[in-house]
Amino acid sequence: MALALIHHPVVDKNGKTIAAAVTNLDLHDIARAAKTYGVEPFYVVTPLTDQQHLVTEIIDHWVTGVGARYNPDRRDALALIRMQPSLQAALEDLHARWEAKPQVVVTSAQMAASDLDWNGLRRLAAGERPVLLLFGTAWGLAPELIQAADFRLAPILGRNGYNHLSVRSAVSIVLDRMFTGPAGDES
Amino acid sequence: MALALIHHPVVDKNGKTIAAAVTNLDLHDIARAAKTYGVEPFYVVTPLTDQQHLVTEIIDHWVTGVGARYNPDRRDALALIRMQPSLQAALEDLHARWEAKPQVVVTSAQMAASDLDWNGLRRLAAGERPVLLLFGTAWGLAPELIQAADFRLAPILGRNGYNHLSVRSAVSIVLDRMFTGPAGDES
Repeated sequence: MALALIHHPVVDKNGKTIAAAVTNLDLHDIARAAKTYGVEPFYVVTPLTDQQHLVTEIIDHWVTGVGARYNPDRRDALALIRMQPSLQAALEDLHARWEAKPQVVVTSAQMAASDLDWNGLRRLAAGERPVLLLFGTAWGLAPELIQAADFRLAPILGRNGYNHLSVRSAVSIVLDRMFTGPAGDES
Repeated sequence: MALALIHHPVVDKNGKTIAAAVTNLDLHDIARAAKTYGVEPFYVVTPLTDQQHLVTEIIDHWVTGVGARYNPDRRDALALIRMQPSLQAALEDLHARWEAKPQVVVTSAQMAASDLDWNGLRRLAAGERPVLLLFGTAWGLAPELIQAADFRLAPILGRNGYNHLSVRSAVSIVLDRMFTGPAGDES
């Protein structure tokens, strides 16, 4: 299974499509979670040239630069990152790696009509085609990405209807549920 | 159940006891996770005066200031934060709120001898005494805190021995497992 953190197209507070800025800790936290659960690559998707430079600088620092010697554990995590200018480019890369067409699973805290639960995701990931799990920055993935996906993962529900986890928390919980959660109903 | 994010005493990379700086996103991410799972208060523990000022400024901005109008969901999360100068002060506050002596549960990625699993934590939290779950910043809680605790929670294990999640990810996963994880063995 692979992950993609999408910076465009995502929506802002008012639902308008934007390109979000890259957050340094997103890269660190999500790479560390991906490494913990054996998920790769971790695609960081941004079409903005200056943001691509920022991502490259962060990766270089931690994977081959001073940071790699300072903290080898961090190096091992950030080495999973692959920067791509678009979702399409990430899909093409994943397709080439697996020699099979990827299936796209989208996540959203406001998922109106999900059609994939945790067991479904596990079954999908056990198949012969690669699975790319998409997470949105800012206020979430743009509607056209959700519509175009192969599957829509059930949202993470807390205990009281509050559904405003950070994307860093959401990725961590999704991977933990996916790989160490209950076997549940296999029917 | 309540949470405490400890900035002192914690250890650095070499195991030396330090007071760590407060990270803005720790406050946001952990408050949002606490709100999602109905955990409060979220104690931010630091003895450093300048760091206490920083925490107060962040809370004021989001709970009563401009941020509260900009993002009411964030206000509801950050309103769960209570700053305290020491673990002892947090324990006294929690004791007074519940009128019962708190039980301290420590977490650590390198927990050598845990004595509490997820079901044990659920049973503890269902009891009549408050439970305070401690998370360490930097390279984790100082040994004396782990020794002095009532219980040591089982570490989060991934799939390959890599155990370097961010504290933001660790809190999110612990709360998710605690409140929405499998019922498991109740014996």
